Amino acid sequence: MHGANLQMSGFEFEIVATDGAARSGIVRMERGSVLTPAFMPVGTAATVKAMLPESVAETGADIVLANTYHLMLRPGAERIAKLGGLHKFMNWPWPILTDSGGYQVMSLSSLRDISEEGVRFRSHIDGSEHFLSPERAMEIQQLLGSDIRMVLDECPAYPATEAEIETSLALSMRWAKRSKDALGAAGGACFGIVQGGVFPHLRQRSVHELTTIGFDGYAVGGLAVGEGQSAMFDVLEATVPHLPPDRPRYLMGVGKPDDIVGAVLRGIDMFDCVLPTRSGRNGQAFTWEGALNLRNARHADDGAPLDPSCACPACRSYSRAYLHHVVKAGEIIAAMLLTWHNLAFFQDLMRALREAVGHNMTADFAAQFLKRYRGEEAGPEG
Amino acid sequence: MHGANLQMSGFEFEIVATDGAARSGIVRMERGSVLTPAFMPVGTAATVKAMLPESVAETGADIVLANTYHLMLRPGAERIAKLGGLHKFMNWPWPILTDSGGYQVMSLSSLRDISEEGVRFRSHIDGSEHFLSPERAMEIQQLLGSDIRMVLDECPAYPATEAEIETSLALSMRWAKRSKDALGAAGGACFGIVQGGVFPHLRQRSVHELTTIGFDGYAVGGLAVGEGQSAMFDVLEATVPHLPPDRPRYLMGVGKPDDIVGAVLRGIDMFDCVLPTRSGRNGQAFTWEGALNLRNARHADDGAPLDPSCACPACRSYSRAYLHHVVKAGEIIAAMLLTWHNLAFFQDLMRALREAVGHNMTADFAAQFLKRYRGEEAGPEG
Repeated sequence: MHGANLQMSGFEFEIVATDGAARSGIVRMERGSVLTPAFMPVGTAATVKAMLPESVAETGADIVLANTYHLMLRPGAERIAKLGGLHKFMNWPWPILTDSGGYQVMSLSSLRDISEEGVRFRSHIDGSEHFLSPERAMEIQQLLGSDIRMVLDECPAYPATEAEIETSLALSMRWAKRSKDALGAAGGACFGIVQGGVFPHLRQRSVHELTTIGFDGYAVGGLAVGEGQSAMFDVLEATVPHLPPDRPRYLMGVGKPDDIVGAVLRGIDMFDCVLPTRSGRNGQAFTWEGALNLRNARHADDGAPLDPSCACPACRSYSRAYLHHVVKAGEIIAAMLLTWHNLAFFQDLMRALREAVGHNMTADFAAQFLKRYRGEEAGPEG
Repeated sequence: MHGANLQMSGFEFEIVATDGAARSGIVRMERGSVLTPAFMPVGTAATVKAMLPESVAETGADIVLANTYHLMLRPGAERIAKLGGLHKFMNWPWPILTDSGGYQVMSLSSLRDISEEGVRFRSHIDGSEHFLSPERAMEIQQLLGSDIRMVLDECPAYPATEAEIETSLALSMRWAKRSKDALGAAGGACFGIVQGGVFPHLRQRSVHELTTIGFDGYAVGGLAVGEGQSAMFDVLEATVPHLPPDRPRYLMGVGKPDDIVGAVLRGIDMFDCVLPTRSGRNGQAFTWEGALNLRNARHADDGAPLDPSCACPACRSYSRAYLHHVVKAGEIIAAMLLTWHNLAFFQDLMRALREAVGHNMTADFAAQFLKRYRGEEAGPEG
């Protein structure tokens, strides 16, 4: 699995080590390199919530994700383009992956009307009507100037019947082809998205159709929507082995630390999830001993740091008692410190996974991680 | 006016320059020195809202204010003492001034019952009953371990009759004596608070009584409560000349940039106000051309920085268009960036005032500042 693959877009993926199905590597782009397995913090509306971009970079993040749906509605893709593009706008000069907007149209907007052409919907902000097609999704991502762009796909609700998934998949594959056609020579890298629900043969059909079109990388979509970790891992095991080994694989919207560890074991290279940032705003902190709720009164007199092994400002300079106090008081610094800590934890986890792959000890690392992590997670704070 | 005055508390005030009534100097304390005229950011509940302490220091702040009322209710003064004191708790190793709780008891709590002994009140957080006396206010500040402590005073509502102010003042002066007696040898520096409403002879009586007791510094209280700038300046002119010239003078809860400039001209050395932090959370930014509301649609496409002369992150790395976007979207980064900018602006203003005093050009500086500042303030955004 060693070698490089340079695309027209200046997008290159090099695998530097493998360990069973797990891989570690480097995605090289003009704006910077991303070490994989990689976790991409979510910068929904051109900000990773409660963080300055330099702090996001300081945690070790090489790339962030931004949401086409949110940015097309506010402040608008054409406006961002006129202001010099998304990187300049949000003060993040390193790589950005943009999604296509499809998932959020399905989950946030109202009055969705899906046709062969695309999807008409109303903004959740002001009710205004908008239209997203594969071509428009690519145009918006071009206007934003992102480094990795995602095809527009339909995201069926879970659960869905096999027939519903099959119909939806067929539409998503036609949209994938139109997205690739719309990308054009000037575009950035573009990833296809494997759909097919929990049905192995549909997942494999999706892989076949996408690889026939040809993309810079392949995402696995339609997971982490309620099917549970075991079903998700089953889908990965039925899907990932069919993906081209020399392209990065991105598991969208995942996930919890144990989801990430299990998915890396199954050959996934990239992740994104709102969990560390959203949890940080809700008083929850991730540690190697599991997730903690800082709102819990048992922290009120605890002068110890959140995690003595962590180098983030929350752990370096504050006690659990202080974090408890600012969470209870609803202070913005609680969101700032806990988000920073959670992003640092996720990046530390990815670093540990990359090292484990490099030392051919991924399975051992995973077993030890899960034992330690779930030990406390099963405790009183669950 | 040159010379030093070392107290038992290790508190020293040196005046390094005077210009008419205006002075610039240095307050020296064990934890650090404060250049005056000084603006103290407000760290109500052991956090300057939306800022990390190192960022507060980076703006140039030498000292912050923390609120006894808030901290006694949550997380509790005894708890903070057990955790090593307020400086360690909130990760601010430099000087802290604490108020006495009096003002907030009057403005925030319910069911206040004021007697000679002190004030009984209910917490605005959970309705629990509490009692604050001059002795307890000093004890709480001792537990917090602040560097400058304020006497408990009664803060009468505005407007009030002369008779009401006179009665209230008499109580405040008896409380000031009890506060000083309660301070003890181990205490930090302690400031008295001049009351007396808008009545010059009552202000002067208050000064006389406080200087007879003897304090490390003197605050002017009971202003910025609705009397207007002109009445406030009148009170300063009737009060400040009677204060001992070798002690720092602190105008509590003030204020707007033009209030600060006018008060420095009248001999005030120290200020605190929630204005820069609160405004920052509400989308308002202070500039040399006046206050701007970033929510205003005219900023939506403006690629220029908020203030090209400012070195804060908001001005260095973002456009007005971005700030407008994150304010409109309610993103936490809006509060973070605008608070940082506003605190940087206030510290830049204090630096300019200190320099103006040092160069004997305070009146010229003030006139030029007000012309420029009010030029835009009178514009469409008021």
